[in-house]
Amino acid sequence: MPAKGVHVAVTADVVVAGGGVIGTAIAWQAAAAGLDVVLVDPERGDAASLVAAGMLAPVSEALFGEGALLRVNLLALERFPSFAAELEDVTGHRVGLRREGTLAIAYDPGDYAALMRLTAFRRSAGLEAEELDSRACRKLESFLAPDVHGGVLFPGDWSVDNRRYAAALREAMTAAKVRIVRDRVTGVLAGDGRACGVAVADGGEIGAAQVVVATGCWTSSVAGLPAELRAAVRPVKGQLLRLRHPDGMPPVLTRTIRATVRGVDVYLVPRADGEVIVGATQEERGPDRAVTAGAVHDLLHDAMSVLPVTSELILAETCAGLRPGTPDNGPIVGGFGAGTGPGNGPGNGPGNGQRGLLLATGHYRNGILMSPVTADAIVAYLTGQPPAAEWEPFTPERFAATPAAGEGSR
Amino acid sequence: MPAKGVHVAVTADVVVAGGGVIGTAIAWQAAAAGLDVVLVDPERGDAASLVAAGMLAPVSEALFGEGALLRVNLLALERFPSFAAELEDVTGHRVGLRREGTLAIAYDPGDYAALMRLTAFRRSAGLEAEELDSRACRKLESFLAPDVHGGVLFPGDWSVDNRRYAAALREAMTAAKVRIVRDRVTGVLAGDGRACGVAVADGGEIGAAQVVVATGCWTSSVAGLPAELRAAVRPVKGQLLRLRHPDGMPPVLTRTIRATVRGVDVYLVPRADGEVIVGATQEERGPDRAVTAGAVHDLLHDAMSVLPVTSELILAETCAGLRPGTPDNGPIVGGFGAGTGPGNGPGNGPGNGQRGLLLATGHYRNGILMSPVTADAIVAYLTGQPPAAEWEPFTPERFAATPAAGEGSR
Repeated sequence: MPAKGVHVAVTADVVVAGGGVIGTAIAWQAAAAGLDVVLVDPERGDAASLVAAGMLAPVSEALFGEGALLRVNLLALERFPSFAAELEDVTGHRVGLRREGTLAIAYDPGDYAALMRLTAFRRSAGLEAEELDSRACRKLESFLAPDVHGGVLFPGDWSVDNRRYAAALREAMTAAKVRIVRDRVTGVLAGDGRACGVAVADGGEIGAAQVVVATGCWTSSVAGLPAELRAAVRPVKGQLLRLRHPDGMPPVLTRTIRATVRGVDVYLVPRADGEVIVGATQEERGPDRAVTAGAVHDLLHDAMSVLPVTSELILAETCAGLRPGTPDNGPIVGGFGAGTGPGNGPGNGPGNGQRGLLLATGHYRNGILMSPVTADAIVAYLTGQPPAAEWEPFTPERFAATPAAGEGSR
Repeated sequence: MPAKGVHVAVTADVVVAGGGVIGTAIAWQAAAAGLDVVLVDPERGDAASLVAAGMLAPVSEALFGEGALLRVNLLALERFPSFAAELEDVTGHRVGLRREGTLAIAYDPGDYAALMRLTAFRRSAGLEAEELDSRACRKLESFLAPDVHGGVLFPGDWSVDNRRYAAALREAMTAAKVRIVRDRVTGVLAGDGRACGVAVADGGEIGAAQVVVATGCWTSSVAGLPAELRAAVRPVKGQLLRLRHPDGMPPVLTRTIRATVRGVDVYLVPRADGEVIVGATQEERGPDRAVTAGAVHDLLHDAMSVLPVTSELILAETCAGLRPGTPDNGPIVGGFGAGTGPGNGPGNGPGNGQRGLLLATGHYRNGILMSPVTADAIVAYLTGQPPAAEWEPFTPERFAATPAAGEGSR
């Protein structure tokens, strides 16, 4: 319950903090489920989702020891086409889903040995993979450098145009009557043992029965969350390039290429409109979003090593984004406590202070891919349904079982 | 005299076609000399002068066989400080003139041999040059790669911040009451055997007793000029990068470095405000201004080869400009015929059709450096004075002694 004398600008069933693809997908789906939703976002244009490459890559992203993450990513991939189709239906815009698969390329024999080890692991997890020699790789992608050592085709890894997708989500959300407040959420408000809204930077408050925090790498700046949770999400800087074909030049690649060039990973993701995304660095540099000469050089160098014709493309944009990373590389999705839903739901123990509070953050490299299933899970929580079992390892409780310290609550 | 039924929007003593640094410097100085001046420019932001690095480098640019060009460049360098001082006085803005000299760096022994041959030539022309071994180079610029072979310091080569300089020129011109028409000059008008104004893209005409064509690489599109002259100016594409120091990083260089890295030239030009310009390609690609992945890679690669710390700088901007190149690399400055001035001036033979027409174009790589002396020369012509003798080899007559074909005249 807001304190006396503080202006409550808006009230709603649900307030969503954060307008990246996670927050927007949640707001859209919650409104479509009949809830009255307010989304709060400062609209600074710095969402990680706008800098992404849009790879939907549970297979070629799967690493040793990340079996639970692989399972939720596979769930996400299975869900993506129907979600995208609904989004295209609602908005009338294409989101550029491509299902040609991903070709992993090993530049030298050392890179190939590493790729073979990963491929064996991925196969053991039931994933489809087709080994190809250098010649077979070039048969798929004729502009590949002749000296690449070999590769593996992963038919199960797709891509989507992240910017078209984000724009369509926003349009669908608006059409579903979600109200948008252009401001920054500074804290979660709590009263009577449960979350009751958010405070925003301009000094106002927004009251709501349930609060969803989808603030990506800025989660650490939201007061009223448990300190361990705030500490669990960190920005991981990623720089990438947007290249474009000059007029009249035929497409230089037909599917996503992920290459390892002397131990360094680079990817090239083609778009239907002639764009090619080249990414990405992974840098632990705090909230720094500067594009550096060295990163651009290295990305271009590695891209040109596997696909020399890249040099002929136009360098249309360089950008940097901040992925919300977590200690176990997994997302943070759900509430506190065993139950679901607002009635018997997240953290409804007496005096817990977390009831009505849901997290949807920390999606790291898989935010675009996971946005549909994250929206599904959060809408399930919001409406008192159980989320998919795949989410069980990714609740906030793995980082913070205890209530918030009350920094933002009263 | 304009044809009947055509609207003459403006009349003036002098109309200047083109608002790069050449046209702007001329317009300012002509107005300061008491003439009523109109400058016509489409203001598309594509002037070569905005993409330049601002090197004032007659010494390190001097090549074998270009003695006449060297002489006019040395005249230009001598003039630059007083012109810049006047500009700073008039506008109250600094233009970033730096006189620390230029350090030429040879990356490997082959590069060094080539640099030594050029240095011998430059010394024979009376230019100051100081040979330095690798260690002495690093004493001057401590961030240089330890494996550069050696270098030569040319104290006589300076630099200016081209964008500050261009902005100040524009302000000075405006303060001097030059009227600006935002349009593109499509042709020079002639009547009664002399130039009498220009036609502009919107269909109007601007009448003037004297016409100065300072249209850079677009000179070929100006009707009414002799065909040979239009053919003599071609765009030479140059791509360059603007890097910036991150907050708190000390300057990575103190003077301009021009390096030859395995036969390829690259330069790094520092600015007082923390910017470092890296350039530049020279490409014969017509009017194409696309920034290409390959060029950006190569510039970064070569810059990082001589100054590895470049990788830490922010890549603030990539851009491409079109230098107005000529067959002999020299500018085209002056009129037609032996005389000067409007009365007894350029091409005043009967029926010549070139009287009152002056060219100031084709400055190729030296437009910033030559802008003050080009303005001096054109104002001399406009006011019936003789220009400096150094200009004699660079009149338009070396390309087109005959009158215009009348395409744009009547």
